[in-house]
Amino acid sequence: MNAPRDPMLPHPADHTHRPMPPAMLEALRQRFGPRCSTALAMREQHGRDESPFDVAPPDAVVFAETPDEVATVLALAHQHRVPVIPYGAGTSLEGHLLAVQGGVSLDVSRMNRILRIQPEDLTATVQAGVTRHQLNAELRQQGLFFPIDPGADASFGGMAATRASGTNAVRYGTMKENVLGLLVATPSGELMPTGSRARKSSAGYDLTRLYVGSEGTLGVICEVTVRLYPLPEAVSAAVCSFDSIDAAVRTTIAIIQMGVPIARCELLDAHAVRAVNRHDRLSLREAPMLLMEFHGSDASVAEQAAVVQEIAREQGGMDFEWATTPEARSRLWAARHHAYLSALQTRPGCRCVTTDTCVPISRLAESIQASVAEVEASGLPYFIVGHVGDGNFHMGYLIDPQIPAERETAERLSAQMVDRAIRLEGTCTGEHGIGLHKQAFLRQEAGDVAIAQMRMIKQALDPHHIMNPGKIFV
Amino acid sequence: MNAPRDPMLPHPADHTHRPMPPAMLEALRQRFGPRCSTALAMREQHGRDESPFDVAPPDAVVFAETPDEVATVLALAHQHRVPVIPYGAGTSLEGHLLAVQGGVSLDVSRMNRILRIQPEDLTATVQAGVTRHQLNAELRQQGLFFPIDPGADASFGGMAATRASGTNAVRYGTMKENVLGLLVATPSGELMPTGSRARKSSAGYDLTRLYVGSEGTLGVICEVTVRLYPLPEAVSAAVCSFDSIDAAVRTTIAIIQMGVPIARCELLDAHAVRAVNRHDRLSLREAPMLLMEFHGSDASVAEQAAVVQEIAREQGGMDFEWATTPEARSRLWAARHHAYLSALQTRPGCRCVTTDTCVPISRLAESIQASVAEVEASGLPYFIVGHVGDGNFHMGYLIDPQIPAERETAERLSAQMVDRAIRLEGTCTGEHGIGLHKQAFLRQEAGDVAIAQMRMIKQALDPHHIMNPGKIFV
Repeated sequence: MNAPRDPMLPHPADHTHRPMPPAMLEALRQRFGPRCSTALAMREQHGRDESPFDVAPPDAVVFAETPDEVATVLALAHQHRVPVIPYGAGTSLEGHLLAVQGGVSLDVSRMNRILRIQPEDLTATVQAGVTRHQLNAELRQQGLFFPIDPGADASFGGMAATRASGTNAVRYGTMKENVLGLLVATPSGELMPTGSRARKSSAGYDLTRLYVGSEGTLGVICEVTVRLYPLPEAVSAAVCSFDSIDAAVRTTIAIIQMGVPIARCELLDAHAVRAVNRHDRLSLREAPMLLMEFHGSDASVAEQAAVVQEIAREQGGMDFEWATTPEARSRLWAARHHAYLSALQTRPGCRCVTTDTCVPISRLAESIQASVAEVEASGLPYFIVGHVGDGNFHMGYLIDPQIPAERETAERLSAQMVDRAIRLEGTCTGEHGIGLHKQAFLRQEAGDVAIAQMRMIKQALDPHHIMNPGKIFV
Repeated sequence: MNAPRDPMLPHPADHTHRPMPPAMLEALRQRFGPRCSTALAMREQHGRDESPFDVAPPDAVVFAETPDEVATVLALAHQHRVPVIPYGAGTSLEGHLLAVQGGVSLDVSRMNRILRIQPEDLTATVQAGVTRHQLNAELRQQGLFFPIDPGADASFGGMAATRASGTNAVRYGTMKENVLGLLVATPSGELMPTGSRARKSSAGYDLTRLYVGSEGTLGVICEVTVRLYPLPEAVSAAVCSFDSIDAAVRTTIAIIQMGVPIARCELLDAHAVRAVNRHDRLSLREAPMLLMEFHGSDASVAEQAAVVQEIAREQGGMDFEWATTPEARSRLWAARHHAYLSALQTRPGCRCVTTDTCVPISRLAESIQASVAEVEASGLPYFIVGHVGDGNFHMGYLIDPQIPAERETAERLSAQMVDRAIRLEGTCTGEHGIGLHKQAFLRQEAGDVAIAQMRMIKQALDPHHIMNPGKIFV
């Protein structure tokens, strides 16, 4: 166990409040009027996210409406040495949005314009506050879609900042693969475009990929240019239940190893199925389940499905239940995306400590098996959902926040799981990011030399440490 | 035209020779014995690449055999402030390998061990000196392949350092998408692993992607972990000739816009076809041609081919000529990969100035049309090959190095082409990198703020500017 401190507790070094100079607040008020708020309710709403951390409110909340306004806030913050925390849809799971050193929460949710959709190039450029549902609603009529779908209706700025993925990543990749370029406001308040609309480039350091996953610590993402995909000619979704998680996972491993171009391959354990049944009024068999989707031409979809059914049968999978209509399919996937909230409702008042390990596909079975054995032994309520086609799964420990021992148990189990994932050549986080929660894990995973390099980059680009300080590393 | 100087000529600022302290040479000799050479022939061989630049020999050449040896050289270079230029297969096209400030050419070609192939995870880890042919020869018997294929038999270190791609990128992505992790020797001589074997990760800054494409300016890549792919169940290749380049390009645009998962889609103009016919003793119709390949199941390949044939027919394409046997297919692709050398042989004694613009697919036709009109008006001999499915094409200007006016003309045409590509929201380099040749273009494309950020990162990670100085930017 390598986590040197309880990551749920405030840490003295990274949680020192930096007082906001009155001149800064004055300048913000002058510039933004009522779009700069210091009301407690507003600050508290912006000092939390979907993580189980206690709220850490900023000193002020500013609603920016243009990249120039973002740059203005940063220039002021740079001058006055005031922390800035970019805020989009508020759906982080790792404490990214907590103002642990005070400062300004820079809310970009009103920067919600879809700037350009270029079907002829399969690209779109959106402001950082646009959400994935918003873009997809717009794309549907053009026969296109954007595949990245973290559970929540996250913003593009947030998805880029955490290098998000979701259920389609096994076929379409993550934000890393799907962001072509950004417009970034740098910590000194300059606007910097990165990348281009070309599908590939070897032009200098890959600043786009440096900012994708930088969790707001190197600047504020103002605009995102992404790749789009034609809606597949044929889509079919199916669920398949198994006697054991292990059988479902072995099925997944075989699908990936055979190179079947499956579009989605999600695991839900019996607890997760029970929760979504209740929440979404479904009647899925309450057993470990794979929820799969196939994209392609009619022939190719039929072919993929036949191969996968054969593999599943070999692992004792039951018959596929097909979701044949778009409505039935949407209902299933909505249920999958509600799994987190559904599970929270199974234990009223609970909070969820979520894991996010990702391992090479061949190690997935042992990774999940051992984690299940450990949580079963602990007695904590839990559920599992997983983008298993990627080797990525989430265990949610449902803890009573009033019982410190439960929180400790969850963190111990999480640390054991991360230890194992790193030993199996995987990562502590497949898609949620480091935030406040996983800093000890990052040190363990990346090693001292890499952490030192990250710090050097941070120091070089943000010398006054105004950008989301206390996150990723301290 | 924004290139402020002739990029073919030495520039005083980046070409100042930094004297090698005798203590450094002494230390290298002591440590490496005969694997440290100062023989002129050896130095000259290492002071050039496949670019048209004149040789700029290093002061010494060291053959490293392990990552520890690489780190040792860097620690010494760091201490003595001596430039180090990583050298793999020597196949750069942009002057990356020229020792413009002197120093040590660090040859990693003897680090040529395939360390691990893990078919169960579709990953391999190789030393930096392993070449793509070498890995693929090893993979074939396991039913796997690695798709990135720049024309030359490049090394993995070099392909990673230039963010290379090739003919398969339209389906399988570039080095950016296919490198999972690296072992890097930092400029101060420490070994740093980046990434993991997991398919995705959100763990901290993406150092892997920072080093992929850093052209040896941030450290030396010692090991590369890459994604592999199962050999497709069915492969079929075809050529299709067109009356005009434009018709071939319009066909390509339609293929991509329709989302056909074509594996390769290469353009050769009539000059390129003529050159490969001669070099590889083929009898292809000497007209603009698309060389295509389809991967998948039997049914899916047949389906893709039918769609593409229909599109080609609409653009006036002639009948497909199929390469049905693996041998015929290999012969065609070998010819494609020989296009550069074949074209050089059409004008004995010539050198080739190569362009590498990449634009959004909808702008490809106008990009190529205008470039062809300009080169035709100039009278320079040329050829075109292109990874047109990516919007990327190479025009090779075949110049007589004894005639300065030809070189100037080629550079002027190239600058016009880059101007246009940037205006069309593309990039000056799809896959070759910046090196010595495209620094003015990079400034034009990325802008001052981005260049300043790149410089800050360079300064932070390599404060003594020992890593491949004078490349990417000065």
